[in-house]
Amino acid sequence: MADLNNEKSGNITARGTDYSQWYLDVIAAADLADSSPVRGCMVIKPNGYAIWENIQKVLDQKFKEKGVKNAYFPLFIPKSFFEKEAEHVEGFAKECAVVTHHRLSLGEDGKLNPAGELAEPLIIRPTSETIIYHMYSNWIQTYRDLPMIMNQWANVVRWEMRTRPFLRTTEFLWQEGHTAHAANEEAEKMTMDMLEVYRQFIEEYLAIPAISGIKTESEKFAGAVYTATIETMMQDGKALQAATSHMLGQNFAKPFDVKFLGADGKQEYVSQTSWGISTRIVGALIMAHSDDTGLVLPPKIAPTQVVIVPVWGKETDKDIPVEAAKKIAKQLQNFSVHVDERDGRPGPKFYEWERAGIPLRIEIGPRDLANNIAIAVRRDTGEKTEISLENIDDEVGKLLNEIQENLFARAGKYQKEMTSKIDSYAEMTEFFQKGNGFAEAHWCESPECEKKIKDDFNATIRCISTDSVAEDGACPVCGKRSNKRVIIARAY
Amino acid sequence: MADLNNEKSGNITARGTDYSQWYLDVIAAADLADSSPVRGCMVIKPNGYAIWENIQKVLDQKFKEKGVKNAYFPLFIPKSFFEKEAEHVEGFAKECAVVTHHRLSLGEDGKLNPAGELAEPLIIRPTSETIIYHMYSNWIQTYRDLPMIMNQWANVVRWEMRTRPFLRTTEFLWQEGHTAHAANEEAEKMTMDMLEVYRQFIEEYLAIPAISGIKTESEKFAGAVYTATIETMMQDGKALQAATSHMLGQNFAKPFDVKFLGADGKQEYVSQTSWGISTRIVGALIMAHSDDTGLVLPPKIAPTQVVIVPVWGKETDKDIPVEAAKKIAKQLQNFSVHVDERDGRPGPKFYEWERAGIPLRIEIGPRDLANNIAIAVRRDTGEKTEISLENIDDEVGKLLNEIQENLFARAGKYQKEMTSKIDSYAEMTEFFQKGNGFAEAHWCESPECEKKIKDDFNATIRCISTDSVAEDGACPVCGKRSNKRVIIARAY
Repeated sequence: MADLNNEKSGNITARGTDYSQWYLDVIAAADLADSSPVRGCMVIKPNGYAIWENIQKVLDQKFKEKGVKNAYFPLFIPKSFFEKEAEHVEGFAKECAVVTHHRLSLGEDGKLNPAGELAEPLIIRPTSETIIYHMYSNWIQTYRDLPMIMNQWANVVRWEMRTRPFLRTTEFLWQEGHTAHAANEEAEKMTMDMLEVYRQFIEEYLAIPAISGIKTESEKFAGAVYTATIETMMQDGKALQAATSHMLGQNFAKPFDVKFLGADGKQEYVSQTSWGISTRIVGALIMAHSDDTGLVLPPKIAPTQVVIVPVWGKETDKDIPVEAAKKIAKQLQNFSVHVDERDGRPGPKFYEWERAGIPLRIEIGPRDLANNIAIAVRRDTGEKTEISLENIDDEVGKLLNEIQENLFARAGKYQKEMTSKIDSYAEMTEFFQKGNGFAEAHWCESPECEKKIKDDFNATIRCISTDSVAEDGACPVCGKRSNKRVIIARAY
Repeated sequence: MADLNNEKSGNITARGTDYSQWYLDVIAAADLADSSPVRGCMVIKPNGYAIWENIQKVLDQKFKEKGVKNAYFPLFIPKSFFEKEAEHVEGFAKECAVVTHHRLSLGEDGKLNPAGELAEPLIIRPTSETIIYHMYSNWIQTYRDLPMIMNQWANVVRWEMRTRPFLRTTEFLWQEGHTAHAANEEAEKMTMDMLEVYRQFIEEYLAIPAISGIKTESEKFAGAVYTATIETMMQDGKALQAATSHMLGQNFAKPFDVKFLGADGKQEYVSQTSWGISTRIVGALIMAHSDDTGLVLPPKIAPTQVVIVPVWGKETDKDIPVEAAKKIAKQLQNFSVHVDERDGRPGPKFYEWERAGIPLRIEIGPRDLANNIAIAVRRDTGEKTEISLENIDDEVGKLLNEIQENLFARAGKYQKEMTSKIDSYAEMTEFFQKGNGFAEAHWCESPECEKKIKDDFNATIRCISTDSVAEDGACPVCGKRSNKRVIIARAY
């Protein structure tokens, strides 16, 4: 993994100069994560983990409203389980951590060596369909046991070759939902219902415009009938897959023998879904809104929404503004507020909180106090507003709402600008030569044309959007008729 | 791991007949967990996981009030890190899962074989001192970076030979707090402060009397200067170590080079602590209060505090009591309430909720409605009370408080009855021949006498209680003078 600059005072590379370095610099400046001595694994530091905790809190609540129950399944998957679903093993065998021994013993060289070889190697879960459905086959007897709707918050491991903090790490944190239903249509509905939970969450809380769609056959989850996806656009015009929901049909039910006795007295395989969102979404959140000064967080997900910085002339005059700041904090009890009481000049403090992405900064000095006002500074626009101390609670609420809406609108405007209808191969060539963005193009549904696009432009079909309307057209690669556009983009 | 009877309608073995089987039966009857196909690993089912979620919620809040920040560190620990602290490796090398390969490849036999051997094996964390303190050594520069107080909620793996659901599993869930301080006394204070957080939580929420104390040298954490512990008594008179807090001093700071520049301009090693509580505590909770009918949960930690069972004569008369039950549920919005709307006779429902450990059951039938009352049945005593529908909110609150207090008092009474002052070896022999319990005895502090007790009675010194008072006496094993009693017991 690219080394994170752990020096908080380091400069942030401009987005325009080096987008990848900018991303790493923003993470370092806001102290969100650090690289670790374990290849491809990162440490999520308190500032970064607090964002993930907020994401968990909101989503967990939304899941529970949908009848989802949390459970916990083993980290280890027996190798034999892995072998049962052919596509699944094909998809994950190349990048999994394998446990082969259960102790270390001291060798003659004074080093510890693996000892106690296991009869059957264990795989560290890259995803848990196999072990969970094995359990489901024990738990599900009749239609009365259905639907079964469980979720786990867990760590998973995929041995990635190229890693980047949050976006792609060998170990990552996620939730994985797993359901079993009596009818295929129920599973189809569940797949799209959970996708919609993700879409709403990503738009409403993370302020990132989210496109719902279906993956092509070559991009679907290994073992799924089809995969539904949420695609988002980052500030370099690249796509980022933010969450997925898989219609598994009976693909796992059959090898894992997940059957139920129907009301009609017949044995039937269940229909299943799985769906997940991971710490990768924190990377999307960072990249969607931040700027050349540092992190920008939407108020609805920011661990600290408001920082109050009391301002004074001489250090001896500190007490009155500090007390005023604490009083304001009490008035703002509906928000998550931090009072910066440290000694020192205000300038570096302002800069620090800007880099950390705090949505709103309130400055309060002796002159402001005399006028019964404070200065509110928006992180998204830098705009300064005088706000009255009388009804500061309302004013702050209003400003935070405006910031949330502005971030969403700004990201939406950018996405729109970076999206083009592409109707010929020449246009597509020009589009991807110029840079990144979403190309809305027709596609004949052949894997060959999909592959040619990938080979020529390093771009993939991100999804067939659920919003795409019937429209007559021709595949820009082969010219065959098509009745729908797909979204093509380079991706994270 | 002993097989869990997954048949919910199975009978529960009486505690007096077979305590171990009773424990497994209670878990199965309340549907808390199941055995898994992975040796020593269990599946925590929704009913069991909801208890753990409640424990997490309360403790996480208490930690945050103490200034603890959550973070996340890698699952993997490089083997070389493990080798740095001699006692630590000695303590954990014999029971750790070792990752040696990073993919599977299809062999000629059609089987998947481990491939991609790692240059250095990785250990799955049995505990994270080594990796976390490696990071701390990068993060801590001066006294201004101290104290550093972090916690992670995570899974850990210890390759246990004999496992039991919740009490001892190869993989388990826990939190591990890790702190670094400028002064040794600060670390000592932290060790005991966090122990006190656990003690209060265990007594107040889990209603289990908790003894704070210090472990002997032979029972301390591998690498600690000393280990502070919370010891509890189960209903078979055995001890269960419920949480531990370790004073690490500079034992890890030195090999991991965790140094800081003091205010005096001198480089100094930090002093450290670590402390944890695991899913084992769910096992303690089950064993502390449950009875021969099934699970008993204290109201303050029960995922469902009240179940309302509407009662009717003919199925066609169902609507009125069901509507009344829903109305009551609305009045009880300060509590976690479930309304059992299912068809069927009330008897089996009552039985099911008793087995599941719901603290309070409210029965409401047509006759009760006519009298404007409901029947409340306590899970702890089976006692039935008529409660007025007018102020049902108050009545239920009062009853739940009484249940919480009664469970704590009952467990305290049992512990007291099962604890004896032991003043000679003959007395100790008789005590442990008769059965289990806490023996309060003098001890000369020699490992030899400690070992003889262990060999002769299969009992260990659980702790030197922080409440133990100075008292002249003699070691029952060797007769040497001692000035304090210790607690000796057989343990989980």
